[in-house]
Amino acid sequence: MVGRWVIIATERGRRPSDFHRDVPPRRPGPCVFCEGQEEKTPPEILAGRADGRMNAPGWSYRVIANKFPALRIEGDLQPSGEGLFDRMNGVGAHEVVIETPDHDATLASLSVESVTNVLVAFRERLQDLKKDPRFEYVLVFKNHGEAAGASLEHPHSQLIATPITPIMVTEELEGAWRYWEMKERCVWCDIVRQERRAGVRMIAEQDGFAAVAPFAPRFPFESWLLPTRHRSAFEESSMDELRGVAGLLRDFLRRMNRVLNDPPFNFMLHSAPLHEPVLDHFHWHLEIMPILSKVAGFEWGSGFFINPLPPEDAAQALRESTEP
Amino acid sequence: MVGRWVIIATERGRRPSDFHRDVPPRRPGPCVFCEGQEEKTPPEILAGRADGRMNAPGWSYRVIANKFPALRIEGDLQPSGEGLFDRMNGVGAHEVVIETPDHDATLASLSVESVTNVLVAFRERLQDLKKDPRFEYVLVFKNHGEAAGASLEHPHSQLIATPITPIMVTEELEGAWRYWEMKERCVWCDIVRQERRAGVRMIAEQDGFAAVAPFAPRFPFESWLLPTRHRSAFEESSMDELRGVAGLLRDFLRRMNRVLNDPPFNFMLHSAPLHEPVLDHFHWHLEIMPILSKVAGFEWGSGFFINPLPPEDAAQALRESTEP
Repeated sequence: MVGRWVIIATERGRRPSDFHRDVPPRRPGPCVFCEGQEEKTPPEILAGRADGRMNAPGWSYRVIANKFPALRIEGDLQPSGEGLFDRMNGVGAHEVVIETPDHDATLASLSVESVTNVLVAFRERLQDLKKDPRFEYVLVFKNHGEAAGASLEHPHSQLIATPITPIMVTEELEGAWRYWEMKERCVWCDIVRQERRAGVRMIAEQDGFAAVAPFAPRFPFESWLLPTRHRSAFEESSMDELRGVAGLLRDFLRRMNRVLNDPPFNFMLHSAPLHEPVLDHFHWHLEIMPILSKVAGFEWGSGFFINPLPPEDAAQALRESTEP
Repeated sequence: MVGRWVIIATERGRRPSDFHRDVPPRRPGPCVFCEGQEEKTPPEILAGRADGRMNAPGWSYRVIANKFPALRIEGDLQPSGEGLFDRMNGVGAHEVVIETPDHDATLASLSVESVTNVLVAFRERLQDLKKDPRFEYVLVFKNHGEAAGASLEHPHSQLIATPITPIMVTEELEGAWRYWEMKERCVWCDIVRQERRAGVRMIAEQDGFAAVAPFAPRFPFESWLLPTRHRSAFEESSMDELRGVAGLLRDFLRRMNRVLNDPPFNFMLHSAPLHEPVLDHFHWHLEIMPILSKVAGFEWGSGFFINPLPPEDAAQALRESTEP
């Protein structure tokens, strides 16, 4: 719905199994994110623990400030000009969600309960950062594996709160609004209906959530997870809903790991901007992209992406890869 | 002018010298792009040679069809729908410009005369592909080094002709048009004037061309090369102009190689769409990006880029790195 064109280059004749790759060995723990190393990180903002002592062992997840933040929490926005250009102070928040005390785990190996806890942490932080009027948006994302930009291997995700709604979200909002104006229906709701009927790009569906291969994926195996009922703001999710997402997310990652042999990947949560009311035309979704190739001059220069694998083939491989 | 925001994360405290890196060894030739291997590539579309025999040794540059094209030259566009979505045949042209017979050369090590020849090849191919009414745009680009997406080390660049003007160019055209409507001046002409006056982001200027660090670079050392006089279409360049670009491009790459130790890089030529008349508001430019870090979840999810190096520091390092 953002008017993106991708080039499905079947000339290059890639099959799903061509993307299977060797896994680099992981560096063993303990690292600064491990249990018992709490004093080596910035202090806890939030943690899941049965009893009280902060910044000490006994947690299931921890949220901390990023030690090398892209943006700083202190200060005012102070927009200013420089001739043709605009400048703004780099105000924001940059936090890390340590997903488990277990250095060697992954989101795919954790229990559904533990994955749910990570999603609870996302929800709590979104609700808290929403109270700061300087922030328009919080992007929750994950870098897994060095090729996906992760510098530490211990399972973690991140969030960055920004004073501007990111362009990627703005474009989705605008595209979805144009669709709403035409049809008075949410485009993602329509996509879920169409993909259920067609079947060819549906990967899995359970407990009110669906995993689908988008019609125009930028990358092989790019996938979306989204609620099948209309929901615009992730942070409004109930515990039942979070359990539903967690179950499907874990199931999806296990499928992806079986098909692609534990690939590096990114995920990015697109939810409505913080201060929007419930939106009829925007539908939150989690975009997941295994990193299997390099972005190069054509993509940077054009904004087009060349994807050698049709989404129907990716969806079929993921759909058919059930638990052994 | 495309309304891009980037985050200059000085918190991360990087200096230009922090980006210096080790160079992986190059695989020795001969490869399929070397002189004497002409029968291993698709046939020549164009070549620079003193005497006549095609597909044989004796050339200074060669243009061939890409053996694994992203788009195919045969066929009609045949737009079609699939429910919510649109499909179009992958019609286009994908060509490779072999820049020199010398496997071990680079654009930076070639003579100005040889770099000029490469630019002549770009111009000739643009002029020829312009005759095909199916094509709206030709993107000329280069991937140098594995991290920048190059699969072969022999010096080469590429071009892809597409039936749609790429979104990156459309956004520039729209932004530049808004600026024109306000000021009746070309925004790039104004940038050249402003950067000449300010000096801090100017890298080099010679023979009618300037190299500048853009105000909002996505990546450390991202740079633009552009004519200082208004020119919208690269393929209208005179031989004198091509010699001018070639001299500055070679000078720029040598500066970049000294500062960053021969980094992987991409360049992308943004020229006006093929069938536009001379445009007063669009100004052709070559974007050059050394690849020094990985794009990760935040960038993919937001469209914002986090750049740890202010453009003024990058420009200063490049400006001060003169030939030893």
